[in-house]
Amino acid sequence: MNAEIIAVGSELLLGQITNTNARFLSGQLALIGINVYFHTVVGDNAGRLKQALEIAERRSDLVVITGGLGPTKDDLTKETIAAHLGVGLETDKVAMESIELFFKRTNRVMSENNRKQALILEGSQVLPNDHGMAPGMVLKKGEKLYMLLPGPPSEMEPMFLSYGAQALTSRQSSQEQIVSRVLRFFGIGEAMLENEIEDLIDSQSNPTIAPLASEGEVTLRLTAKHSILESAIELLDETEKEILGRVGDYFYGYDDTSLMNELAKKLKETGLTLACAESLTGGMFQQEFTSIPGAGSSLKGGVVCYTNEVKASVLHVKKETIENEGVVSAKCAAELAENAAQLMKADIGISFTGVAGPDELEGKPVGTVYIGISQIGKPAHVEKLNLGGGRKANRIRTVKYGCHFLLKQLNEGKEA
Amino acid sequence: MNAEIIAVGSELLLGQITNTNARFLSGQLALIGINVYFHTVVGDNAGRLKQALEIAERRSDLVVITGGLGPTKDDLTKETIAAHLGVGLETDKVAMESIELFFKRTNRVMSENNRKQALILEGSQVLPNDHGMAPGMVLKKGEKLYMLLPGPPSEMEPMFLSYGAQALTSRQSSQEQIVSRVLRFFGIGEAMLENEIEDLIDSQSNPTIAPLASEGEVTLRLTAKHSILESAIELLDETEKEILGRVGDYFYGYDDTSLMNELAKKLKETGLTLACAESLTGGMFQQEFTSIPGAGSSLKGGVVCYTNEVKASVLHVKKETIENEGVVSAKCAAELAENAAQLMKADIGISFTGVAGPDELEGKPVGTVYIGISQIGKPAHVEKLNLGGGRKANRIRTVKYGCHFLLKQLNEGKEA
Repeated sequence: MNAEIIAVGSELLLGQITNTNARFLSGQLALIGINVYFHTVVGDNAGRLKQALEIAERRSDLVVITGGLGPTKDDLTKETIAAHLGVGLETDKVAMESIELFFKRTNRVMSENNRKQALILEGSQVLPNDHGMAPGMVLKKGEKLYMLLPGPPSEMEPMFLSYGAQALTSRQSSQEQIVSRVLRFFGIGEAMLENEIEDLIDSQSNPTIAPLASEGEVTLRLTAKHSILESAIELLDETEKEILGRVGDYFYGYDDTSLMNELAKKLKETGLTLACAESLTGGMFQQEFTSIPGAGSSLKGGVVCYTNEVKASVLHVKKETIENEGVVSAKCAAELAENAAQLMKADIGISFTGVAGPDELEGKPVGTVYIGISQIGKPAHVEKLNLGGGRKANRIRTVKYGCHFLLKQLNEGKEA
Repeated sequence: MNAEIIAVGSELLLGQITNTNARFLSGQLALIGINVYFHTVVGDNAGRLKQALEIAERRSDLVVITGGLGPTKDDLTKETIAAHLGVGLETDKVAMESIELFFKRTNRVMSENNRKQALILEGSQVLPNDHGMAPGMVLKKGEKLYMLLPGPPSEMEPMFLSYGAQALTSRQSSQEQIVSRVLRFFGIGEAMLENEIEDLIDSQSNPTIAPLASEGEVTLRLTAKHSILESAIELLDETEKEILGRVGDYFYGYDDTSLMNELAKKLKETGLTLACAESLTGGMFQQEFTSIPGAGSSLKGGVVCYTNEVKASVLHVKKETIENEGVVSAKCAAELAENAAQLMKADIGISFTGVAGPDELEGKPVGTVYIGISQIGKPAHVEKLNLGGGRKANRIRTVKYGCHFLLKQLNEGKEA
C-alpha cells in the first residue's frame, strides 16, 4: 500500500508552524509497512485542497489528511472531501457526547461551532479523539482509502497510535513484511560511528542502515524486508549483532526510547530514589524525568538552585567552596549532589552546575559543566564537560550527559 | 508571483527528519510578497521528482527545490531537472575553486563525487554556498522560475538570506509591500474568540485575519498589502484596534513572544524575585523560565516537590493539610507558595499542585490543578483549574496558566 500525506493549513504555508505531523505519520506508516511517496501541504482553500486530493488519488492508495477538522470557518477538510467524494455528512452520536462531556468537565460554554466537530463522513469508521474534540475517521471509497486526522499533534499522535494504526493494518492485504529498528547511541560522533561500520553501510541492502545525528545522539535505522516476518526480524538481529560488536559501548536503547527513559526504567528496576540539584539546567532534568508517566515514584524531588544564595541556604554548599572554588567547580557539584540526597532523603543525589551561556561565569568559559553523583552518605563522583554549543544545546546536552553518567554508574554497580 | 516548495529526500518520507526548510522558506517568501500555495515532499527518485515538477509547473510561477545537491549517488536533483527542462550541466569555475579550497583547508582528500557538486544548470545564476560545497542556482525557463537550494538547513538558510532573496526580488515586477503581525491571546478558546470577531473575519480582505489555536493559546495573524509601507502598517493598526476593543482582555503580546517571555520581562521591569514550588509540573515552569537568557536573575530558585514527604520536610506543608485536604487542594497550594517564598527569601512564591494524569489522585480527577501565588509574608491567592487534556498537555497548560495569573496580578498591582 502506497500512501500520501496531505496537511491542510494556511499557517503551514505562511511558515508559522512546521509540518511535524508528516514526519510523525511517515515514521509510523513505515513501521506498519506502508510506503509514503509524497507529502503535500495545502492551505485552507477548498479549490486547492480538491486539486491536491485529485493528484493524490492518482498516485496513492491511501490518502492521509491532517488538519482542518476544527470548529472555525477556515476548517473545511470534511466539507471539501464530502463534496469531492459525493458522500454526505452526519452527526456522530459518540463524538457529540464526548464533545458535550469535554465542555461540562472543563466548565466552558459550548458554541454552535463546536457542534460542527461531531459531523463525520457518511459510512466512515470513527477514530475517537481522547485529547480534543474533533474525531478522526477512515473511509473506503472505490479503490482508495482516506484517513482524516486532526491537525494539533497533541491530538493527532495519540489518535493514530491508539486507533489509526490498527484501522490501517486491519485493512492491509500485503504479503511483504517490513520491519524497522532504531539503535540509539550516545557519547560517539556521527562521523566516528560511521567510520566504524562503513563497510556494513556500503555492502548491506537488506537490511538498509541509515545513520542520523541529532542533539548529541546518533541513531541507526535498520530496515529489513522479507515475505516471512520472522525472517525479516532475523535479518535485523544479525546486522544489529555485527554493529554492536563494534560500537556497543555507546549503545543505550532501541526505537523511540531516550536516555531519560532508560534511566527511569533502571531506577524503577533497582528501586532506588533520586534527588536533584539543578543550577544551569534550571529544572530541565526533573521536568524531563517527570514527563515520563510513572517515573515520578523514583524521584523524591529536587532544588532548582539558580542563585548562590539558594545553593548556600537551602543546599548548604559551604561558604569556602563558593568563595575559593566558585559555584562552577567540582567541589560545588559534589556538595550539591551529596546535600540534595541528604535533604530529600534519597538514595542518590545528582547535581548540575556550570556555564550555559551566553556569558562566561567566574572566568570560566561557556560550556564548562560539572555533574555530581552521590550515593547518600558517600562522597560524590564528579564529571567535567566542555561543551561547545549555545545556551540551549548546552543545557540539553548537560541533561543527557547526566542520564548517561548515572545510567553507567547504575549498570556498573549491578555488575560488580 | 505564486510559489511551490519541493523538498527532495527519502529521509523526509521515512520520518527521519522534519521538513523545516519548507517552513523557513515559506516565512521568507511571505516577507518578500510571494504567496506559497503548496509544499511537496518527494523521495530520491528521478521519476517521482519529474512528476512533482510537472505538477508544480502547472500551478506555480516559482518552483523552489531543496535537497539532492549533495555528492552521493542518491542526490539527483540537478540531473533530473536538467533532463526535464532539456538543459545541459556545466562545471562552474567559482564553485569548483571553492570546493577545492574547502578540501585543502580541511586537509581532506577530494573524491570524484565532490566534483559533481560544481556542476550547475546551463544558463543559471549561481548562489554561492558559504557553509558547504553545493552551490545553489536560479534558472528562468519559459514563464517559470526555478530555484535550487541545498538540503541541510545550515547551508540553505544562510544561502537564501544572503543571495536567494535578492535573486528573487530583483526579478519581481510588483512593488507591493506586505506586512504581517501576530496577536496572541490566552484564556479564551478559538471558537469563542472567533465568535466575537466573526464579522471582521468575514468582511476583511486587507488585512486578512487568520486564527490559529495551539496548546491552549489562540493567535490571529493580520496581513496587509499596500504599495506604501506606512499605509500597510496603518491598515494593521486599525484592525488591531478593532479586535482588541472586543477581546483585548485576553491579549498578551505580539509575534513570537510567549507568556513566559512576557512574565520574565515584567519581573525584570518590577525588580521582583520569584521562588517556585512545583509538584505536577516537575520543574517545567522553572526550566522554561531559565531558558530565557537573562531571566534567571529574577528567579531565586525553587523546589520540585514531587513527593508528599518533600512537600512536608522541605516546604513545611502542614501535616493536617495533607491529611485532611490532600496535596491536591487549595490549602496545600497556598502553603507551598507561601513557604517557597519564605525559604528562598523571594518577593513572590508560586506553586503548582494537581493531577497531571494518567491516573487520578486522592479521588480527584485528572486535570484538577491548583496554582498558588503569594507575596512574601502574605496569604496566597489560589486559582483552580479543570483541564481536559492528557498528561503532557495538562502540564504545559498549567505552566501557561501560572504565567497568565501571575502576569495578571503583576499588571493589576501596577495599576492599583
